[in-house]
Amino acid sequence: MQKQTHRDKQLQELKEKLMRMASLAETMIDQAIRELVERDERAAERVPQYEDEVNRLQIEIDELALEFLATQQPVARDLRCIVAMTRINSELERIGDLVINITECVHVLASQPPLKPLVDIPRMAELARRMVRESIDALVREDVALAQAVILRDDEVDALKDQVLRELLTYMMADPQSIERGLALILISRHLERIGDHATNIAEDVIYMIQGRDVRHPRLAREGTSDERH
Amino acid sequence: MQKQTHRDKQLQELKEKLMRMASLAETMIDQAIRELVERDERAAERVPQYEDEVNRLQIEIDELALEFLATQQPVARDLRCIVAMTRINSELERIGDLVINITECVHVLASQPPLKPLVDIPRMAELARRMVRESIDALVREDVALAQAVILRDDEVDALKDQVLRELLTYMMADPQSIERGLALILISRHLERIGDHATNIAEDVIYMIQGRDVRHPRLAREGTSDERH
Repeated sequence: MQKQTHRDKQLQELKEKLMRMASLAETMIDQAIRELVERDERAAERVPQYEDEVNRLQIEIDELALEFLATQQPVARDLRCIVAMTRINSELERIGDLVINITECVHVLASQPPLKPLVDIPRMAELARRMVRESIDALVREDVALAQAVILRDDEVDALKDQVLRELLTYMMADPQSIERGLALILISRHLERIGDHATNIAEDVIYMIQGRDVRHPRLAREGTSDERH
Repeated sequence: MQKQTHRDKQLQELKEKLMRMASLAETMIDQAIRELVERDERAAERVPQYEDEVNRLQIEIDELALEFLATQQPVARDLRCIVAMTRINSELERIGDLVINITECVHVLASQPPLKPLVDIPRMAELARRMVRESIDALVREDVALAQAVILRDDEVDALKDQVLRELLTYMMADPQSIERGLALILISRHLERIGDHATNIAEDVIYMIQGRDVRHPRLAREGTSDERH
């Protein structure tokens, strides 16, 4: 077996911390939506407890990345790898922030009678959670096909968001007493949609890391720019 | 006069591109809000034209930063400077995205009769625009006090957002016909609030760059972590 170099160890540690962060983000999404469905007024207390660890990991990852840059002076693929992991770090932290926003809406909803049985929002949450998981799996396994699948799945989340909006507007127009709750649910669906967007960004970073190809702004590429990043 | 080194030139070019991006973001905010106030149905056409240039600049800045890392192999302050500028680059691109989201709401609103005279939203937009400007001024002048002032101003934007929400909910409850427009205005105020958040992030990056002190997660610091980043 080949001996692990210091470089390998540093990269491995970075990946493991990102995996830990993603797993916390998944737990946060699950818990927030469970509390939404169960109408748990303590939602605003529990989920934020995870956030401190997410923030702490974000700091540690940034420090490790800086240390890698300063000590290994990476070029080419190693440099792309560090850049991608730093970006993924920010995306995961923002996902944590979004779940906190969701719990604030859950807290508002828990103190009022249910507006309607929730179907699409838990489905959106499950899709978004899976996108986060698979984007990090794609990073760990360096799997471009999986990263591409995550990017495609984002359309499903967007479609559900539009469906949720249309349905809730109907409720809100029929009964002004439902407006505040309708708005809280609309905001939750938007936060979930943005979690999907961040998972998509992670998948794009993974492709950039592996292929050195920036897929962030496809429209620019079609217009004749040589680079495909957004 | 001292001769400018290649390093100085690269850093200067990065700063200039970030200034250009920030100035585009400001123009986009101004234009979107002007089109909101003037009820201009073409809002969704004009503002996105700026976005391509924002995206192109984002790519160029990331490339310059990578080149700097690979050729200068920076450590200490220069490394922090590049890391901060890369983060600021992402923040500015996200601000551009948020203005695009605003124009989509403006488009919805322009086709319907006005709900109410707009006062707080243009004020929020002006505050957010000024935060973007001043956060980049703080970068260019390396002005910690100005960066701190930007961070403090974020509370004003948040307070206006809450005020907008309360007022619009009243309208929406009084007249179900106003619900869609009320929602569009609430979303605009949330997008503006997030622009303020991104400007705050930029100001935090500037402080990190100058002082090597990460001010992103103050709560972690209070809890005894040696590092203050979020």
